[in-house]
Amino acid sequence: MRLIFTNRKRMALKQISSNKCFGGLQKVFEHDSVELNCKMKFAIYLPPKSETGKCPALYWLSGGCNIKGEDESWDFGTGAGFYVDATEDRWKTNYRMYSYVTEELPQLINANFPVDPQRMSIFGHSMGGHGALICALKNPGKYKSVSAFAPICNPVLCPWGKKAFSGYLGTDQSKWKAYDATHLVKSYPGSQLDILIDQGKDDQFLSDGQLLPDNFIAACTEKKIPVVFRLQEGYDHSYYFIATFITDHIRHHAKYLNA
Amino acid sequence: MRLIFTNRKRMALKQISSNKCFGGLQKVFEHDSVELNCKMKFAIYLPPKSETGKCPALYWLSGGCNIKGEDESWDFGTGAGFYVDATEDRWKTNYRMYSYVTEELPQLINANFPVDPQRMSIFGHSMGGHGALICALKNPGKYKSVSAFAPICNPVLCPWGKKAFSGYLGTDQSKWKAYDATHLVKSYPGSQLDILIDQGKDDQFLSDGQLLPDNFIAACTEKKIPVVFRLQEGYDHSYYFIATFITDHIRHHAKYLNA
Repeated sequence: MRLIFTNRKRMALKQISSNKCFGGLQKVFEHDSVELNCKMKFAIYLPPKSETGKCPALYWLSGGCNIKGEDESWDFGTGAGFYVDATEDRWKTNYRMYSYVTEELPQLINANFPVDPQRMSIFGHSMGGHGALICALKNPGKYKSVSAFAPICNPVLCPWGKKAFSGYLGTDQSKWKAYDATHLVKSYPGSQLDILIDQGKDDQFLSDGQLLPDNFIAACTEKKIPVVFRLQEGYDHSYYFIATFITDHIRHHAKYLNA
Repeated sequence: MRLIFTNRKRMALKQISSNKCFGGLQKVFEHDSVELNCKMKFAIYLPPKSETGKCPALYWLSGGCNIKGEDESWDFGTGAGFYVDATEDRWKTNYRMYSYVTEELPQLINANFPVDPQRMSIFGHSMGGHGALICALKNPGKYKSVSAFAPICNPVLCPWGKKAFSGYLGTDQSKWKAYDATHLVKSYPGSQLDILIDQGKDDQFLSDGQLLPDNFIAACTEKKIPVVFRLQEGYDHSYYFIATFITDHIRHHAKYLNA
């Protein structure tokens, strides 16, 4: 009885929309999140192949800074909260996006869709790029590959990160490092992880010191973790930047997901 | 002096945004429209090739029915007015989208960008598909090719068209035919025009009788005007439908624009 109840809960997905697209279906669902204590929406693309067999899953984490032209595939809303599990009283009941993204959502996806649970990868943009990096670095072996567009690489040292982390995690900065990609690289056990990062050279947040990719690259170099970092001349932080290079990222993930 | 003044007027483009995209630049401009007596915005994509030579121009007319997921390349706003020149007093000063699209805008584009004025084509979606068809049919030889996604094909017979045309053109229905693609085909002089139309089979506006492509196809068949009409199984009226097939349309136009 308990098991059935659990399964019933997992199955409680409400379809919001379904549109045929490139031969498959682009769908949006709503569900009650246990981790976040609120209704959440996510989008999923089911390719034609999924009609006849299980497919790998590639998770996309969007940014949350109201970037012009941003088109969110996973609509986590503006309160995405840096993809951490908050510990401060005011936030800790609802702001548990790290657990949602790494545990609750994959369980939900695996239980409801024709997905191979052994083959998952993750990528994202800006704050979502930071999220993708920490999800992969905190869970060696869980994701086959990781990539990011203009990720926040060293949040403990940038204004956005300091504000978010002090709000969600409190003033004890030693706790912050558990969600900082550059610090996580330093203690990464070294199992296979191929990282691809694209960064626009004319991104205003790069020159503002919000993204700090150099610190991340230096840490990867020291730990001999393979990372391809491409500084793209003339590109900014926008949707247009993502659109231009997302095919390369999907190919990067397909190499590992279809291996 | 007069010529200089005219050129100065033409040059009065205000750049709203510029984003590098696929190696080129996606830009949005604002200008004071003479035809429409208001400020207008348009978007233009300048491919890398445009840095060294003149390019053909492909005009996109968006729909105006607040379609979910619709992404407008030419932002004509919701008051696009069926791409007609209104004759009724209430609308005739501002609703002259037909003249804007066929005359004022191309002159502005040709004067300000590295565009070959001899090579232009046009396409659009829904109301914009109707607009593309009438622009091409009313101006034999002006456009090298035309295509449409789910166009309103016979507006004098559909509820949207009847409402719009009686508002903009008055109650004399004989005047409506000058802006109706199906009627225009019947009097088309027959110079070369290769038409491509994609239509979603599950488009609710198709079953509602708003689009009436059969009437248009029958008229083309009778006049021996070549038209490729593709009824796409499972697709609706949305952006996802356009995204899936727009590459085919761009290839269709490239065949004539680069000939």
